[in-house]
Amino acid sequence: MNDGNWTPRTDLALEAREMLTKQVNEDISGVMVETLEDGEVTITKVHITNPEAERIMGKEQGTYITIEAQGLRDENTLLQEQIMKILAQELVEMAEFTKDAVILIIGLGNRNVTPDALGPRAVEKIVVTRHLQSMISPELQGGVRSVCAIAPGVLGITGMETVEIVQGIVNKIKPNVVIAIDALAAASSRRVLTTVQLANTGISPGSGVGNKRVGLNKATLGVPVIAIGVPTVVHASTIAIDTIDAMQETAPFARYFKSMEQLSDADRRVIVSQVLPDFLGDLMVTPKEVDRFIADMGVVVAGGINQAIHPHIDYQNIYKYLH
Amino acid sequence: MNDGNWTPRTDLALEAREMLTKQVNEDISGVMVETLEDGEVTITKVHITNPEAERIMGKEQGTYITIEAQGLRDENTLLQEQIMKILAQELVEMAEFTKDAVILIIGLGNRNVTPDALGPRAVEKIVVTRHLQSMISPELQGGVRSVCAIAPGVLGITGMETVEIVQGIVNKIKPNVVIAIDALAAASSRRVLTTVQLANTGISPGSGVGNKRVGLNKATLGVPVIAIGVPTVVHASTIAIDTIDAMQETAPFARYFKSMEQLSDADRRVIVSQVLPDFLGDLMVTPKEVDRFIADMGVVVAGGINQAIHPHIDYQNIYKYLH
Amino acid sequence: MNDGNWTPRTDLALEAREMLTKQVNEDISGVMVETLEDGEVTITKVHITNPEAERIMGKEQGTYITIEAQGLRDENTLLQEQIMKILAQELVEMAEFTKDAVILIIGLGNRNVTPDALGPRAVEKIVVTRHLQSMISPELQGGVRSVCAIAPGVLGITGMETVEIVQGIVNKIKPNVVIAIDALAAASSRRVLTTVQLANTGISPGSGVGNKRVGLNKATLGVPVIAIGVPTVVHASTIAIDTIDAMQETAPFARYFKSMEQLSDADRRVIVSQVLPDFLGDLMVTPKEVDRFIADMGVVVAGGINQAIHPHIDYQNIYKYLH
Amino acid sequence: MNDGNWTPRTDLALEAREMLTKQVNEDISGVMVETLEDGEVTITKVHITNPEAERIMGKEQGTYITIEAQGLRDENTLLQEQIMKILAQELVEMAEFTKDAVILIIGLGNRNVTPDALGPRAVEKIVVTRHLQSMISPELQGGVRSVCAIAPGVLGITGMETVEIVQGIVNKIKPNVVIAIDALAAASSRRVLTTVQLANTGISPGSGVGNKRVGLNKATLGVPVIAIGVPTVVHASTIAIDTIDAMQETAPFARYFKSMEQLSDADRRVIVSQVLPDFLGDLMVTPKEVDRFIADMGVVVAGGINQAIHPHIDYQNIYKYLH
Repeated sequence: MNDGNWTPRTDLALEAREMLTKQVNEDISGVMVETLEDGEVTITKVHITNPEAERIMGKEQGTYITIEAQGLRDENTLLQEQIMKILAQELVEMAEFTKDAVILIIGLGNRNVTPDALGPRAVEKIVVTRHLQSMISPELQGGVRSVCAIAPGVLGITGMETVEIVQGIVNKIKPNVVIAIDALAAASSRRVLTTVQLANTGISPGSGVGNKRVGLNKATLGVPVIAIGVPTVVHASTIAIDTIDAMQETAPFARYFKSMEQLSDADRRVIVSQVLPDFLGDLMVTPKEVDRFIADMGVVVAGGINQAIHPHIDYQNIYKYLH
Repeated sequence: MNDGNWTPRTDLALEAREMLTKQVNEDISGVMVETLEDGEVTITKVHITNPEAERIMGKEQGTYITIEAQGLRDENTLLQEQIMKILAQELVEMAEFTKDAVILIIGLGNRNVTPDALGPRAVEKIVVTRHLQSMISPELQGGVRSVCAIAPGVLGITGMETVEIVQGIVNKIKPNVVIAIDALAAASSRRVLTTVQLANTGISPGSGVGNKRVGLNKATLGVPVIAIGVPTVVHASTIAIDTIDAMQETAPFARYFKSMEQLSDADRRVIVSQVLPDFLGDLMVTPKEVDRFIADMGVVVAGGINQAIHPHIDYQNIYKYLH
Repeated sequence: MNDGNWTPRTDLALEAREMLTKQVNEDISGVMVETLEDGEVTITKVHITNPEAERIMGKEQGTYITIEAQGLRDENTLLQEQIMKILAQELVEMAEFTKDAVILIIGLGNRNVTPDALGPRAVEKIVVTRHLQSMISPELQGGVRSVCAIAPGVLGITGMETVEIVQGIVNKIKPNVVIAIDALAAASSRRVLTTVQLANTGISPGSGVGNKRVGLNKATLGVPVIAIGVPTVVHASTIAIDTIDAMQETAPFARYFKSMEQLSDADRRVIVSQVLPDFLGDLMVTPKEVDRFIADMGVVVAGGINQAIHPHIDYQNIYKYLH
Repeated sequence: MNDGNWTPRTDLALEAREMLTKQVNEDISGVMVETLEDGEVTITKVHITNPEAERIMGKEQGTYITIEAQGLRDENTLLQEQIMKILAQELVEMAEFTKDAVILIIGLGNRNVTPDALGPRAVEKIVVTRHLQSMISPELQGGVRSVCAIAPGVLGITGMETVEIVQGIVNKIKPNVVIAIDALAAASSRRVLTTVQLANTGISPGSGVGNKRVGLNKATLGVPVIAIGVPTVVHASTIAIDTIDAMQETAPFARYFKSMEQLSDADRRVIVSQVLPDFLGDLMVTPKEVDRFIADMGVVVAGGINQAIHPHIDYQNIYKYLH
């Protein structure tokens, strides 16, 4: 919950921008958006290029790529494979892995809280190879990079900030790049478990499904951090706020209202507190079958990363490894 | 979702009645309510006594007992034990088990869908004894009744209606009473995983978290059926509908509205469809830590049933068995 | 443990016959064996054709088909698909499903005891269709049969003999054939999780990994019962007995022994009781990674059954369904 | 498997010593043993005090305390609590925690391989407090120490040696003492899941159920390391070796043997390879119900550690936390 700002909460730059343009109805200086359609897949790139845009959007400067396909909830193997491939391409372009890069993958979140378990689940499907480097044949060199991975757990379970654990490991292992996988919150239920976001900004404090206070980024870790996230929930308060907006913005309901004046943040807070009296920050909206969808998306995210990092492993083998 | 009625959906008789009195603001003929406070526990008994009340409430004639305590989400062992004891007392009074009753416990729901898994989880903690009757010493006779239990799975997994499976087993085992445990939907997030409902009406078709089409009741099974349910979710659409109501019913917001005229069902449907465009029936609001709460409430429900059915097993032993 | 016979315990007819011929060293009247090699897969058919053979083998009269491939422990997707296909062919030939057969699949065993969980895991991957028959298009008729499935749980959890539950369901659903899936015990560690056995005899009382006292067969259910089993364990006592045999039968060790006289059953029992003093029947030998192997073999068994029963569903779709 | 030594493998100092004295039949210089009986609990302390004893025993110099009770497999809550209390006392005495010690708990092993999952399971039940130190009231100071915990995963999943991960975290967190929890292999099936071993030596390379190559000890981490282990398996080869020994050492069987001369290591290897032809190192003997026993022992180990470290938290609260 953005405490001082009663707009729906989202971890997706795409949605942050949608909310702004809905209100402002014009281009935002410092925010560039490109959209690509590829069959049933939509790829959107949001570039935040100056501090003013960073402030308005509530997102760090950098590039955010969203890959969306509604069919991801249908156990459609072919579509999953297509998304893996697109994710791999975008990741390669964003990360520019060198031939002998050492890559550390971090699975954020709590493996015992299903909607927060995407990171730990994905990490289990990563093809780790750092311990096998001496055994890799010369012809695979460069196509099977040195990869290691860990799901460090969350503050309430470990007693350590995730950033402390990761800093300790980074100092020891000295990777060239870190990839952090996390479960996100979306503003729209339509994007839950149908969307993957890549960002070259790392992870900001306070984002994600759990109450993570960690920042995993170049400033804290000393190496580039790519964040890969999948929205797994909508905050319950977002549903309430959306309903308020829908009432006011839908033409036929004008007759109910004296004026189309927007409710103030204070008024929104009063209504939301009435509908969701107790644990405002903890109530999550998820599809009933979230357990299965999380498993599926863990495979998709790990598959995309594996293909990006290990181009010389043929796809058959990765697939075999994943199941 | 009650398709023809855009009021919030609930499986709790208590909430069905709260909604009615909010609108009608007077006693409802054929609906009697008693309330009892016991420390931090509230016990409410709703009696639906004639067909007209059945129609208005949307619940079968019979008695519904709700046991509520907010503290049930705090892993408070002492409170859990208190709730088990109250549940046991109410169950004994409602079911009037004879000394040599054979009791069949049915755990409804899908064990692989966390918010729907309460029934299967509770069944695993039931002290089953039917297969041990010949070994029970005479002094325990009557205090350790003949109990059997099964979690039959859901239609999409088995290809069989739950009622078919249970009818087959009832015909074979010939129990004197059936107890059906199920996960419910509440209208208020406050009641999620803090409330247990007992009813002597059995289970109606269409209730519960999953899309169950089964009716488990005296008409279908030929023996009395006690239903024990715990709300584990609120439908996402309920949040949206509550928000509409909260806007209109909160005095300070009157200034926004031309009149306090209620929105029609058709208008509500338009707004809800806009906020929750895709899977209306499937989006669930749950606490983030639903996995742990379901485990806890499974222990509470099974503990209450065990104490009701097996009064001669001392509590220490039941506790030992449960963990 | 075969209490009166201190030979290694096995649920595989193939192994029962290997033990006999090792001792008898000649053809056994009433036992016919055919062997087929198909790449790295070995298919063996054992036919037990008279009561004397039944007695000597300790297995019911009927046909037992064993499909073995050591590579099944290597997560080799292509090999898994080959085994599914062979299993489907043999099952079709054995069961002779009619076009409009109703088929009930029973997953035996305890889902919470990993080496006993094969049946419940496989059942979750079965394509059930009985509830969808009215929706199946005419051109799929006959190629998508009416299938239902259940994992009834074990006696200690349900308080009911599995045969009672299944009889109840069979009386209600009236299937034309029952397929029962179970985890087995092998005599040789080499066969653990590398072998599938089909039998047209159903399940005998006392076989399987758990202490099942159920017989699921034509006599108890009134319809043909096909048993499909996968060995998941070797009894620890089998290792001890094998060691005794290995010492006596290995030529170089002759120098240690006065005579090559076999140890009596009583002597074997003394030694085994000394090595495994406490829970003789409960200690199981399994591969350390049994959790993963059980998941893999559940997919293989369910895939084979799906292909046999639903020939008109194309393989792509079944595969999609399974993951 | 001790490759050059065909004696049964064990991670328990107590068993290493039992094997030696069986053969040597006299006191071993540098190995001191004390035994204490406390009701049904046996406590044995083995002190290895010089390099020669270290070599003979195959265990590092230091103190090994074994707490055994057969009843631990019976879900006996009172006995579990007694073992927790004894473990707490012995741990306090061994570790001599200072009032303001920072303690790091490491759960070794693979959470997805049941018999190897003891460490990860126990870590989830530890009361971590390091992140709450500023919120702890003054009267609890010293009785609620600063504790953090992590289950780092195994080499095959992370691509990093456990010691690398732990070194990284230790450098960052700077604990005063490390406690490492691990699943062990026993020589005797009687000790599986009935025994807890504490050692002030840390963990040696190559011990434990998984193929861990890590040493976690003062030499590698720079702080004292207490190891707490529970045997969860017997290697299958141990059963075979025990059987060979049992045949030769049991008086009535003398008649079978020419001489009582011990089989050579080479001969033992031949026999074991014949009985367990394929995966010698991977076949494990476990109780069938290992899943439940591991859960129980995880609670016992974590409970003992919690009581040792946080003496001012009353037992009711710890218990509440654990379930």
